[in-house]
Amino acid sequence: MVGHAFMGRAHGNAYRQCNRFFDLPMDVVPAVVVGRDKRRAAEAAAKFGFAQATTDLDAVLRDPSIDLVDVATPNDSHCAIATAALQRGKHVLCEKPLALTVDEARSMAALAKKKKVRVGVWHNYRRAPATALAARMIARGDLGDVRQVRAVYLQDWLASADAPASWRTSRRTAGSGAHGDLNAHLIDLVRALTGLEFEAVCGVQQTFTKKRPDGRGGSSKVDVDDAFCFLARFRGGAIGTFEATRVAIGRKNMNCIEVNGSRGSLRWNLERMNELEVFLPDGPDDARGFRTVMCMDGVHPYAANWWPDGHLVGYEHTFVHHLADFVRALHDGTPFHPDFDDGLAVQRVLAAALESAVEGEWAEVAK
Amino acid sequence: MVGHAFMGRAHGNAYRQCNRFFDLPMDVVPAVVVGRDKRRAAEAAAKFGFAQATTDLDAVLRDPSIDLVDVATPNDSHCAIATAALQRGKHVLCEKPLALTVDEARSMAALAKKKKVRVGVWHNYRRAPATALAARMIARGDLGDVRQVRAVYLQDWLASADAPASWRTSRRTAGSGAHGDLNAHLIDLVRALTGLEFEAVCGVQQTFTKKRPDGRGGSSKVDVDDAFCFLARFRGGAIGTFEATRVAIGRKNMNCIEVNGSRGSLRWNLERMNELEVFLPDGPDDARGFRTVMCMDGVHPYAANWWPDGHLVGYEHTFVHHLADFVRALHDGTPFHPDFDDGLAVQRVLAAALESAVEGEWAEVAK
Amino acid sequence: MVGHAFMGRAHGNAYRQCNRFFDLPMDVVPAVVVGRDKRRAAEAAAKFGFAQATTDLDAVLRDPSIDLVDVATPNDSHCAIATAALQRGKHVLCEKPLALTVDEARSMAALAKKKKVRVGVWHNYRRAPATALAARMIARGDLGDVRQVRAVYLQDWLASADAPASWRTSRRTAGSGAHGDLNAHLIDLVRALTGLEFEAVCGVQQTFTKKRPDGRGGSSKVDVDDAFCFLARFRGGAIGTFEATRVAIGRKNMNCIEVNGSRGSLRWNLERMNELEVFLPDGPDDARGFRTVMCMDGVHPYAANWWPDGHLVGYEHTFVHHLADFVRALHDGTPFHPDFDDGLAVQRVLAAALESAVEGEWAEVAK
Amino acid sequence: MVGHAFMGRAHGNAYRQCNRFFDLPMDVVPAVVVGRDKRRAAEAAAKFGFAQATTDLDAVLRDPSIDLVDVATPNDSHCAIATAALQRGKHVLCEKPLALTVDEARSMAALAKKKKVRVGVWHNYRRAPATALAARMIARGDLGDVRQVRAVYLQDWLASADAPASWRTSRRTAGSGAHGDLNAHLIDLVRALTGLEFEAVCGVQQTFTKKRPDGRGGSSKVDVDDAFCFLARFRGGAIGTFEATRVAIGRKNMNCIEVNGSRGSLRWNLERMNELEVFLPDGPDDARGFRTVMCMDGVHPYAANWWPDGHLVGYEHTFVHHLADFVRALHDGTPFHPDFDDGLAVQRVLAAALESAVEGEWAEVAK
Repeated sequence: MVGHAFMGRAHGNAYRQCNRFFDLPMDVVPAVVVGRDKRRAAEAAAKFGFAQATTDLDAVLRDPSIDLVDVATPNDSHCAIATAALQRGKHVLCEKPLALTVDEARSMAALAKKKKVRVGVWHNYRRAPATALAARMIARGDLGDVRQVRAVYLQDWLASADAPASWRTSRRTAGSGAHGDLNAHLIDLVRALTGLEFEAVCGVQQTFTKKRPDGRGGSSKVDVDDAFCFLARFRGGAIGTFEATRVAIGRKNMNCIEVNGSRGSLRWNLERMNELEVFLPDGPDDARGFRTVMCMDGVHPYAANWWPDGHLVGYEHTFVHHLADFVRALHDGTPFHPDFDDGLAVQRVLAAALESAVEGEWAEVAK
Repeated sequence: MVGHAFMGRAHGNAYRQCNRFFDLPMDVVPAVVVGRDKRRAAEAAAKFGFAQATTDLDAVLRDPSIDLVDVATPNDSHCAIATAALQRGKHVLCEKPLALTVDEARSMAALAKKKKVRVGVWHNYRRAPATALAARMIARGDLGDVRQVRAVYLQDWLASADAPASWRTSRRTAGSGAHGDLNAHLIDLVRALTGLEFEAVCGVQQTFTKKRPDGRGGSSKVDVDDAFCFLARFRGGAIGTFEATRVAIGRKNMNCIEVNGSRGSLRWNLERMNELEVFLPDGPDDARGFRTVMCMDGVHPYAANWWPDGHLVGYEHTFVHHLADFVRALHDGTPFHPDFDDGLAVQRVLAAALESAVEGEWAEVAK
Repeated sequence: MVGHAFMGRAHGNAYRQCNRFFDLPMDVVPAVVVGRDKRRAAEAAAKFGFAQATTDLDAVLRDPSIDLVDVATPNDSHCAIATAALQRGKHVLCEKPLALTVDEARSMAALAKKKKVRVGVWHNYRRAPATALAARMIARGDLGDVRQVRAVYLQDWLASADAPASWRTSRRTAGSGAHGDLNAHLIDLVRALTGLEFEAVCGVQQTFTKKRPDGRGGSSKVDVDDAFCFLARFRGGAIGTFEATRVAIGRKNMNCIEVNGSRGSLRWNLERMNELEVFLPDGPDDARGFRTVMCMDGVHPYAANWWPDGHLVGYEHTFVHHLADFVRALHDGTPFHPDFDDGLAVQRVLAAALESAVEGEWAEVAK
Repeated sequence: MVGHAFMGRAHGNAYRQCNRFFDLPMDVVPAVVVGRDKRRAAEAAAKFGFAQATTDLDAVLRDPSIDLVDVATPNDSHCAIATAALQRGKHVLCEKPLALTVDEARSMAALAKKKKVRVGVWHNYRRAPATALAARMIARGDLGDVRQVRAVYLQDWLASADAPASWRTSRRTAGSGAHGDLNAHLIDLVRALTGLEFEAVCGVQQTFTKKRPDGRGGSSKVDVDDAFCFLARFRGGAIGTFEATRVAIGRKNMNCIEVNGSRGSLRWNLERMNELEVFLPDGPDDARGFRTVMCMDGVHPYAANWWPDGHLVGYEHTFVHHLADFVRALHDGTPFHPDFDDGLAVQRVLAAALESAVEGEWAEVAK
């Protein structure tokens, strides 16, 4: 695992837990943490349960006992590290967004195919029990044809002008602000749940706080968006609205998507991540309404691997599910999504929306 | 209409509105307001749309053009006024609770039968669209056999020790506190929705503030309950919990009842009075959950009389529904509930629970 | 009152109720209903409590005893009727949207000023207790500077392809579909709550069902939108998303708006119209969250005119409030909003968004 | 760890995770799983990450390298195993309820004191971030004096008559039904949150399904309650209602408690375990209401040990918190609650309520 900050903790936990709660055909062995600073990498390895730590990525990539490389670094190094790992024939799991640009993502996806290895992008929100149920319901036709999507990802950690600058508020390191960070999740989730492909998008962005404290007594210019909204037309006629923001004060982590089909609707909100709200036209016609499904029964995806009916799981479980599915697909040779093609598709939408916001006009999304 | 305070306003509105929104076989003509103070009665009559006002109840009762007497006075005069009206052969609609004691209620119910007039008690909460739907669903078997009931009526207007004394905080005028005022609603609602009859009850009460300002610089002793909880066993084996309180700070008017049957459940809360939460075992087995039914579609009770689908009604509409149903029953000679027998049944439960709380033991509820 | 369908009922109720529940300096006397069909107009007059009915609009406009003309007809006749009434010097209350085009609206607004009469547009949703509270809170600075708005109006009465065509599904009579009908409400509400003015908009629309039954065995082409979404930039830098749809299956009447400021946020949903969700940074810092304010206490706008604390009002009360405020403004010579300038402002946004959707590009909103 | 079913999994996870996410002064080393069946114990040890497995409890208790014994077996063996462990001077963590009878619990609590070891009962629900926050708020006086408590634990896994018999439906092995299983949690939670001590209780119980399939083609008599409700009087004057049921169809795991104080209120529901609803009289007086606090910010108990603000934790995290606090208390020599005295206090309330239900009268709770 390369990188060991917030995401490293979540991935590390998945490596430790996946064989405890899932009967998998392979054992996952957390081998080595790679970091820039030897001491901090060693601390992370000890904390997360990895056998070793190093600063020498190249040595790790040359090590034949390493099967899988996990890229858990900031966005601007995803491409370089993943490419190096692919070149060495390693399987790769990469944090989202896959890359900083469409070109990077395209090249990574092409290389993964050429090397015939297995790859995935850590779009973990596909694999909450409730979102996996949503995808299942739409796939089996419970909702009919999907017509409309409204997706928002609302946070507020930059609502205050006193919140400090970081790599996340700089275009050079992050590419964009809320857009690449949060809209990336929404775009992947909509693709995963509905199967829709984006045709064209039109965005608007705003930066409400133009300078932030740099932590050294000065201030840094913020050149990424605080909030980014866009309209979407999908191939086949569906339409949607998307919004990512870090300044919706009071909203902590509201990753929320509603889908309306010709026959039914559903809504999911990460802040109540084990629930799915579903409208279906069944039952008595005077007793129709959105039902709140607690997605933690044996009949729900992943739920039986954890606790008795009705006991909740949390954020990190989505990573365990992601990894368990990846390990199974790796062993069985079956498809795994989101792969780098999916990551590339997300990147294309992100890029088109960003271009659209800059140019002030609609932008087509390449197939 | 005798009395013209809060309840008089709500009843007066019902008299004005019922023929506007319901096609009834009779026209309701608000004739006269009776009060103790001539001027205030006249003001009320003008405000509520009644033709006249008077302080002479007896004259009104002797007037052959008066068909219906509405008793909208404090609890301690219900029996006397209703009895006088019944003696004169008038139809009577009486505020709840029907009386101060079981004896009063029994005598009123007997007199109503003897005089062969039509009577009703203003337990208005039976006739929200959502509660009427709940009763319909239980009656047609959607929930199976009712097993458990939990009913609370939570208010907070006496949470502060500074809230003043009134006729509602005195045993002499009100009979009891939250119990008679709020548990009366719950008891009627449970009977109306489920058809269950109470077998035995066991209560506990508490008065947290023993003296309250009397509005004249002194203080008055509070000798009624602030909060009253009781357990119930119903004939046939169901069980229930009930609670009425005026000191649940933050709860404004939470009249809330949940019913669990062998097949389904439902929950209603007056603070969201147009919604009914329903659990039914239909639809896909991975999409089960309580659904929130907006009870304002054409298929729902009373809804079509008001506005297009999805437009809400409020508190006073329950009185209009009550009156419209009463007028139809009066004209057609069909049963109307709650009548004085229902009022008596409520009174028996209230009395048994109060006795139980005083004695510290279970009390049987007479049939 | 010209017209007597759905809106006529709501307005008629307001005329009857406003003096019962509000102490107003003038008495409102419902004089005459004007319709195309004598018999149906007479029925409506009887039902709604008007003294007379007629088919002769011109005679009514010539009648000096008529002070106020209420235009409650379909959208395509608003301009002609209101103009005729203004020409005769009548005060005018007009249904929304004010007109079919910006030109019509501009001419109506100019005429109203020239004639020095008082005018209003029936954007009733400004005057729920909760929306009036929201406006008050934003005006007194509780939320700081408004940064983001997200507003949706979701209905589902056209979700089924079997739902019939009507004047509302034809461009000739309605101008547009969900857009003019529902986005008009959102635009007015955002202006009323936040004081923001629109700078530019970019929309997308879709018609999912292209032909609908015409009720005579054939079918009619649908040439208005089923769903219409648009982005907005406001003067001063705020941004927003808007969506109106009649095909969001399961959503009955979800007129929902969220506003994020630099200091606080709020959210309102017509389906729970007496509640306002509010986030403010007060109280202990470990006890922050959106609070659900039941806006029916004496301290809330309009609430004290109705029932004791915590008892709900419904849809039609917003019209009563609208009328009561209009009557007071008329008597006192104080401003009333929304007037025809506000109606014109809404029309400009509607028109720009529609042009934008047709042209596939952003459109400026004229000041 | 003795026992390795559902609870063994949850405890085992806590042993693995506590040092990963908490900086503790001691390392927890999962040593040995004890079971009746060698093969199944070995599988559990492998799965849960324990070094060894055995069927020989006595050998484990004699092993000086074992510091802590975890009793995770069915209720009827808690006393014997914990007593044996205490006799050997081991620290003990015991599943709830502590014992089958008050006598057993009293003897266990006395022995723990005599042996001067540290003990705990796995009442894990005290240590969700939201419940720990609730306890903190009440302790610092945010709610004023606690007046009323209403607590329900609603499940539905025995709603169907087809649900099979098990050790949980037999009085001999389980002591009682929903009562000991679920009311035990409520009683502990109320004590932990409010500090209130029970004075007297009065209960009612019902068994709706008297026989259940025994899994071998026959049926077993059910001699424990399906549902159990009780009233409580607390020392100092507060009152409360409690209910545990396994037949509230539609309710999966609704462990829900509301507390009303003289100044504020709060409500917690396990089904939304990361949220706390709080009413406090602060902020503008027209903006009061229950606020929904997402208890996953850095300022909230335990939250900073996991993920960034707003990312949820689940059921098993409560066990990790419990263990981490126990380890710290063990190391520092500071008090840990719930200890066996707390377990005894819960047992006394359970026993009094059961006696009360059997006898049909109030029962005092011994101090």
